[in-house]
Amino acid sequence: MHIAIASDHAAFALKQALAAWLRGEGHTVDDLGPDGEASVDYPDYGYRLAEHLAAGHAERGIALCGSGIGISIAVNRHPAVRCALVGEPLSASLAREHNDAQVIALGARLIGPDMARACVTAFLDTPFAGDRHVRRVGKLSHPPFPARPAANESSAA
Amino acid sequence: MHIAIASDHAAFALKQALAAWLRGEGHTVDDLGPDGEASVDYPDYGYRLAEHLAAGHAERGIALCGSGIGISIAVNRHPAVRCALVGEPLSASLAREHNDAQVIALGARLIGPDMARACVTAFLDTPFAGDRHVRRVGKLSHPPFPARPAANESSAA
Repeated sequence: MHIAIASDHAAFALKQALAAWLRGEGHTVDDLGPDGEASVDYPDYGYRLAEHLAAGHAERGIALCGSGIGISIAVNRHPAVRCALVGEPLSASLAREHNDAQVIALGARLIGPDMARACVTAFLDTPFAGDRHVRRVGKLSHPPFPARPAANESSAA
Repeated sequence: MHIAIASDHAAFALKQALAAWLRGEGHTVDDLGPDGEASVDYPDYGYRLAEHLAAGHAERGIALCGSGIGISIAVNRHPAVRCALVGEPLSASLAREHNDAQVIALGARLIGPDMARACVTAFLDTPFAGDRHVRRVGKLSHPPFPARPAANESSAA
């Protein structure tokens, strides 16, 4: 499978480990950075991953930061991409089965490397269930919001 | 605190339980639905919650569905709202401390009511840490994407 991966500095080591493991399993891996442990901002890498997926350059994506929270929010800003923050394999399976998620986010400071691999395996192995989920997933591509906060919403940002 | 809560049918019972508990703790709770266990689509309720928060009608939000995944994606479509899907209190604290999240999402089929309350308590009690996180959180309100998928991105939707 063609898989893209991106992280922040806190998850750099996990990114390197997962990329090497996935390549060893025969997958094609696009490493979207960063290239080292210097401090970066997770939205930059989450946005890069989302654009890569939306453009069709990869079939699946893995988004990593310290907790997984920040980068999962960034990826989900893209209306064509669905990212599930997971900490165990059942959620990773449900993200595929019910939500047709193209991306999972993992927290490198919260789960260990074996759990991360178990999540990725469940994510890659589970098909979308279709059926009633198709309508709901479709609605996720058509949010009733502008892409930027309105002026009177700045306090919430 | 002024708190809004929304769910899908799978998480209706947890929504009722959390709303009653929060009111008993002295909070003001806006219940944005649904009103019963009839099947609904989680994006509709996630979007309603996001708009409620972005408009300043509540300070914090709680988003519930079976896994928490689908409704967390919906809430995060709004560029002024940050939603963290969590399954334990440490993640709920980090969502506030690092990401200034206004909303947490919980999976009613994955965690029990005591764990849900522990997550909500950590979420309500933890302040934003500010500092270097301010710049990163700010970037989450300015994604470099349109609000709708481009025509050539339809395959990813």
